[in-house]
Amino acid sequence: MNKIITLARRPEQIPDEKDFTITSGPIPEIKQGQILIKTLFLSADPYMRERMDLSKSYMPEFKLNEMITGTLVGVVIESKSKQFSIGDTVYGFLGWQIYNVSDGTNISKVTNKSIPPQTALGVLGSPGITAYNGLLEIGKPKKGETIVISGAAGAVGTLVGQIAKIYGCKVIGIVGSDEKCKYLIDELGFDACINYKTSLNIKEALEKICTNGIDLYYDNVGNGLLNDIIELSNKKARIILCGQISQYNGSSPTINPKILGLMTKKSITMQGFMIHDFIGEKSERAIQQISLWIQQGQIQYRENVIEGIENAPKALIGLFTGQNIGKQLLKI
Amino acid sequence: MNKIITLARRPEQIPDEKDFTITSGPIPEIKQGQILIKTLFLSADPYMRERMDLSKSYMPEFKLNEMITGTLVGVVIESKSKQFSIGDTVYGFLGWQIYNVSDGTNISKVTNKSIPPQTALGVLGSPGITAYNGLLEIGKPKKGETIVISGAAGAVGTLVGQIAKIYGCKVIGIVGSDEKCKYLIDELGFDACINYKTSLNIKEALEKICTNGIDLYYDNVGNGLLNDIIELSNKKARIILCGQISQYNGSSPTINPKILGLMTKKSITMQGFMIHDFIGEKSERAIQQISLWIQQGQIQYRENVIEGIENAPKALIGLFTGQNIGKQLLKI
Repeated sequence: MNKIITLARRPEQIPDEKDFTITSGPIPEIKQGQILIKTLFLSADPYMRERMDLSKSYMPEFKLNEMITGTLVGVVIESKSKQFSIGDTVYGFLGWQIYNVSDGTNISKVTNKSIPPQTALGVLGSPGITAYNGLLEIGKPKKGETIVISGAAGAVGTLVGQIAKIYGCKVIGIVGSDEKCKYLIDELGFDACINYKTSLNIKEALEKICTNGIDLYYDNVGNGLLNDIIELSNKKARIILCGQISQYNGSSPTINPKILGLMTKKSITMQGFMIHDFIGEKSERAIQQISLWIQQGQIQYRENVIEGIENAPKALIGLFTGQNIGKQLLKI
Repeated sequence: MNKIITLARRPEQIPDEKDFTITSGPIPEIKQGQILIKTLFLSADPYMRERMDLSKSYMPEFKLNEMITGTLVGVVIESKSKQFSIGDTVYGFLGWQIYNVSDGTNISKVTNKSIPPQTALGVLGSPGITAYNGLLEIGKPKKGETIVISGAAGAVGTLVGQIAKIYGCKVIGIVGSDEKCKYLIDELGFDACINYKTSLNIKEALEKICTNGIDLYYDNVGNGLLNDIIELSNKKARIILCGQISQYNGSSPTINPKILGLMTKKSITMQGFMIHDFIGEKSERAIQQISLWIQQGQIQYRENVIEGIENAPKALIGLFTGQNIGKQLLKI
């Protein structure tokens, strides 16, 4: 039997298990030119929260009582296509269900056998491309500079910090638990980490740690910390707007209008970007370079794997309650 | 007799005539290596407002009951220096008084005799360098793009609009009077202009005019219009933060936190800058190019001249009450 995740109602703030339904159906049949893909891993990503609301996302919203979609890795179990053979591992943008039919247009083969295939959803997928290009193309870090990363223990943040270390930066993470801080410092080599849930005054903590000021801020969260960062920034600092996970569930931070004046006086640049800005060569270079760093032991990655399609809602909800270190995956 | 403008008290919002005192004193005597300069024109500039407050400016604050300083153009009337002769026209950063003594370190000679010397305070001075480099180096306008300029009738705004026209942009000004709108459209060739004081809904007005969206926003004002601009912006739009004249007197607009998400989804860049970012070659190129455009009739400029040192407070106050079209000068 096939099992399908559908959106039962639009969440008001953080999604709830009742916002989703799991339905069953027959395994779909394929026509000439098509393949049947059995899902191995579903990728739970923060951007999916906005698709649960009406017209908030850059992508079409999920429809009520219809299957949600996302990226996944699967294996070809039936093929009427010349391009794909049974046993091929593929990834692509498909439905959140166990069995997907594809004509090959939305998927690619996973060819690198030296690294587990689900990395195509993480370090060697969108989070990797996002971290690499957001940091290097937009942020342009220089040796000796100080970078602060919000949402630092997530799939993107953990990579940004490690790449910044390779480029010779002082790296400070902002996270929501001591366990995450310990992981970032002990295992990934971050220079310092602040647990925003227990820190009495994040600005003071940052001021103490960032003895040479802040040159780069890689923002995955979109909260009011931006105000403090700009106050503590050096001249010509760069602020990389990658995500606003704090806002996806409806929270609305206060942005101090004084930051406009500070940005002027300090010649600060704040730049948003989307992964689509880096299609083609820049995506390929990111994947190649990160693969190399993994093989050289310079980049580590962690996956937070939840098992069973019935736990799909849990995987999504966990993104917004700070459950995951590294890439949030659902193993089928 | 010399006459000197001093700061009598710190203004709370828009400066008042009582915030300044005019004192008299003897004409200063010069020593070997020095010159005596008689002021011809004082430059009233928005940044001076922040120097009237404590620690708000990037420059030292004006001290209470001491002379205020700024840029001026004057003529050498006595010289004990080998570098300067009587009759030389000079400009530089000096005191707001009729007679200044200088050893030549803070001043330069005005050598271009084909254009009135006070342009060294306007189109061929800081406002010119600011407009030229802010637009071209930060904004990088392309032919056919749409630019919106706030504070468009000021010394910087009028230049930005005309340079953007030379570069083939559609140019929309935001100003505070119909007279200013008329000037921008009829005399400077702006494509459209909005009087924010009489427009019922600026966002709707902008939406109607900017039929291809907004690609560039040159912000001299720092108010909440930024929220609307970002909503109406195209992908890869550039926001140039040049000044926050609306905030200098203590007003505090609401910045919508949703702009962070819009900046991400649309890959928008917002960049602050200071004239100091363009010292040297880039300043010289700006002045040369603007001189050429003036000679070719492609750039026009207007000066709003108030006469008499006793009217110095009026010249400063006028900046914040929307009195000036073009460069605000005080003729002595």
